[in-house]
Amino acid sequence: MAAEIVNPRSTDADTDARADLAFDPAFALHRGGKMAIRATVPIRDKDDLSLAYTPGVAKVCTAIADRPELVHDYTWKSQVVAVVTDGTAVLGLGDIGPEASLPVMEGKAILFKQFGGVDAVPLALGTTDTDEIIETVVRLAPSFGGVNLEDISAPRCFEIERRLQERLDIPVFHDDQHGTAIVTLAALRNAARLTGRALGELRAVISGAGAAGVAIAKFLLEAGIGDVAVADRKGLVSPDRGDLTDVKRELAGLTNRARLSGSLDSALSGADVFIGVSGGTVPEPAIASMAPGAFVFAMANPNPEVHPDIAHQYASVVATGRSDYPNQINNVLAFPGIFAGALQVRASRITEGMKLAAANALADVVGDELAADYVIPSPFDERVAPAVTAAVAAAARAEGVARR
Amino acid sequence: MAAEIVNPRSTDADTDARADLAFDPAFALHRGGKMAIRATVPIRDKDDLSLAYTPGVAKVCTAIADRPELVHDYTWKSQVVAVVTDGTAVLGLGDIGPEASLPVMEGKAILFKQFGGVDAVPLALGTTDTDEIIETVVRLAPSFGGVNLEDISAPRCFEIERRLQERLDIPVFHDDQHGTAIVTLAALRNAARLTGRALGELRAVISGAGAAGVAIAKFLLEAGIGDVAVADRKGLVSPDRGDLTDVKRELAGLTNRARLSGSLDSALSGADVFIGVSGGTVPEPAIASMAPGAFVFAMANPNPEVHPDIAHQYASVVATGRSDYPNQINNVLAFPGIFAGALQVRASRITEGMKLAAANALADVVGDELAADYVIPSPFDERVAPAVTAAVAAAARAEGVARR
Repeated sequence: MAAEIVNPRSTDADTDARADLAFDPAFALHRGGKMAIRATVPIRDKDDLSLAYTPGVAKVCTAIADRPELVHDYTWKSQVVAVVTDGTAVLGLGDIGPEASLPVMEGKAILFKQFGGVDAVPLALGTTDTDEIIETVVRLAPSFGGVNLEDISAPRCFEIERRLQERLDIPVFHDDQHGTAIVTLAALRNAARLTGRALGELRAVISGAGAAGVAIAKFLLEAGIGDVAVADRKGLVSPDRGDLTDVKRELAGLTNRARLSGSLDSALSGADVFIGVSGGTVPEPAIASMAPGAFVFAMANPNPEVHPDIAHQYASVVATGRSDYPNQINNVLAFPGIFAGALQVRASRITEGMKLAAANALADVVGDELAADYVIPSPFDERVAPAVTAAVAAAARAEGVARR
Repeated sequence: MAAEIVNPRSTDADTDARADLAFDPAFALHRGGKMAIRATVPIRDKDDLSLAYTPGVAKVCTAIADRPELVHDYTWKSQVVAVVTDGTAVLGLGDIGPEASLPVMEGKAILFKQFGGVDAVPLALGTTDTDEIIETVVRLAPSFGGVNLEDISAPRCFEIERRLQERLDIPVFHDDQHGTAIVTLAALRNAARLTGRALGELRAVISGAGAAGVAIAKFLLEAGIGDVAVADRKGLVSPDRGDLTDVKRELAGLTNRARLSGSLDSALSGADVFIGVSGGTVPEPAIASMAPGAFVFAMANPNPEVHPDIAHQYASVVATGRSDYPNQINNVLAFPGIFAGALQVRASRITEGMKLAAANALADVVGDELAADYVIPSPFDERVAPAVTAAVAAAARAEGVARR
C-alpha cells in the first residue's frame, strides 16, 4: 500500500532551527513520537474491505446494538485503556500543560503494551477543571475498557478518581497513587520477610502528602502496618493542624496513632521505615536516628531524599526510584499487569483486594533470591506481568467484580 | 517480553453462547477488534527505558513546555487523528449508540493507516448533546493533529463541525459531508470530460438533504456546476417551503436556480445528473426522463436508488456506492490523503481550496484510461493517496494555512 509514501512522519523538519536537538539521544528517540496504530486484520483487496468495513461491518454493529455486551468481543474496547492527564503534575516538572505532558503519556502507553500487552491511548486534556475532566472521561468511556489517570495534581486527583469510579463501570485507576503504593508495599513485604519482621510491628514515616504519599499511607494501613505518619511541607499531618485539606484531614484520622506532631525529622527518631515521595531532602542525622535495621525507601527522582550511600550506613534495606541503584520502586512493575488482569476478566473496577493481590504477587516473584539489594524485581523480569495479571484476575473473580 | 502471555486478546470467550457468531466471517474477523497500538521505539533494557520514559523524557517535556510548537516534532500528535462519533447516524443503521458504532470507527481508523499512513483513534462519545460533543472535542484537541467527525446525524453535524472549526487550530473534517462530496466531484469531472461537457452546462438533482446531500450540493456549486436542486423526503428544497431547517433554508438560497418545486421525480425531467445519497428509490420513468447521455450516481448502500442495469439503459455514466459494480464512489479515496496532506504541512484547517485540489487530483489519477466504467479509481489504486496527499499539502501552502 501507499502507507509509507505518504506517511507524515517521513517529511523532513530537520532543516529548521530544531536541528540542534537532533543530536541529543532523548530528542532523537522522541522524533515523530513513540507509538503508532496498526491494523490487526488484513485489507488487501475489496473482499477484505467488505468484511472489515462496509457492508460486512454492519452486521457486527447491529449485533452490538442488540446485545451491548458483545462490544467486548468484537471491538478493541476491552483491551484499550485511556491514559488521561491534564498535565498539572508531570514527573517532577509540575504543571507544564497537556501538550508538554504528551511524551510522558506516550511513554506510559508503550509501557502498557510492552509489559502488559495492553493497548493504551494518550489523552492529554485541555482543561484542569475537576468537573470538566470528569465529564470528558465519562463521555469517552464507551470507547475504552479502563481509565488510567496520570499526573493530575493533588488534591483534585482524589476527587476526580472517586467520582469517576462512582459513575463508570470500567476500572478507573490513578497510577500515581495506587501503582506507587502497590510496588512500595511489595518491597516493604520483602524487606520485612528478609529481616524477620511482621508488618504489624513496623512504624513508617512518609515524606510527602500528595497523590503517592496519601495512597501509600492508606494502602500500608490496609495491609496491616503497625503505624504510619505522613509529613507534608509544614510537618506531620495530625488532627491538631488547622490548615489541612479534606484529604489530609481524613488522613490525620487514619494515620499517626502515636499522635506525633512537629517535623518529619523528629518523627523519624525510632521509626522502622522511611518512605520518601516528596522530592525534599532528609538530613543524615534524622536517618541515623531511626530504629536499628530500618528500611529507607528514598523514591524521589532524580535526587533521592537521602543518598543511598548514606542510607546504607544506617538501614538494612535501601530502595530508590532510580534505575541505576538496586531495588528500584518503579510503577511499571504494577500498572501493566493490573490493567491486563482487570481487562482479562472485564472487571467493573479495581478493588482493594485486587491491589493487595498485585502487591503480594509482585513480592512473591522475588522468592528465594530475596536479599538486601533484591527486595523487588527488575522491570525487565519477564515473570512480573504474568504474575500480577493472574493475581489481579483471580482477585477480581473472588471479589465478584469480574464479568467473564 | 511478556506481552503475548498476558494479552487480554488471547483469552477465550468462545465457550459461551456467542460461539454461533464465530462461524460468520465478518464476526470471526472482528473478534478482539481490528486494531492495536505498537511502540515505534525499542524498550529492551533500562537504558532504553531511561530514554523513552524517566528520566530522559523529562527534557523533551521541558522543551515542549518552553517551545509549544515542538509538540509536533517529538510526539505523535501531528500524525494522529481522532475519529469522533456519537453513534447517531451509523451507515444506514441510524442511531445505534456509541458502543455499536465502534466497529465502524475502528474500520475507519485502520483505513486511515492502510491508505494514508495516518494513525487514528476511535472515540465514540457517550453523549448526543451538541454542546457536550463540542466541549469534549475541544478538550481532546491537545492530543491530536486533526479531528474526523463521523456518522453524527444532521442537522447537528453541521453546527458541531462549524463551531469546532471556529475554536480549534487543527483540521476538523466531517467525512460524511466532505469526503463524499470530494469523491462525487472527482467522478463527475471525469464523466463530464468523457462526454465532452463542461460542469457549467450541467444541471444536477440530488436525492437526500442530509450531511452528504447538503455538502455535495454546496461543493458542486463551488466547482462551477450549472445548477443543482436537492430533494428531501418531502420534495425539492425551495424557498417557498415553510418546513425547512436553518441548513435547508440556506441550501434553498444557494441551489435550485430554476425555482423548481414538487417531487424529486419531476425535477429529473431533462436533468443531466442524478446523485442519490438518500436510501430511497427512483422509478425507471424518472430516470428515463433525464437528458440524453445523463450521469446516474446512485450511491445508496446496499441498495442503489436505481439498479445500475436499469440506469445503464438511459445514462452514459453510472456510478454506485458498491464495490461489486464499476465506478464505486467510496470515501476511502479521499479522507486518508486529505488528512495525510493536511498533517504533513500541519495545516490549521482544511479549506475549500484543499478539498477542490483533492477532487482534481483524484480525478486526474484516471488519466488516459478514462471510460464509462472507469471515471473514478479503485480504492486499491496505489497512486490515489500519494496524489491526494501531495495536492492537499500544496493547496494548504498556497492558501496560507500550512505551518511548515
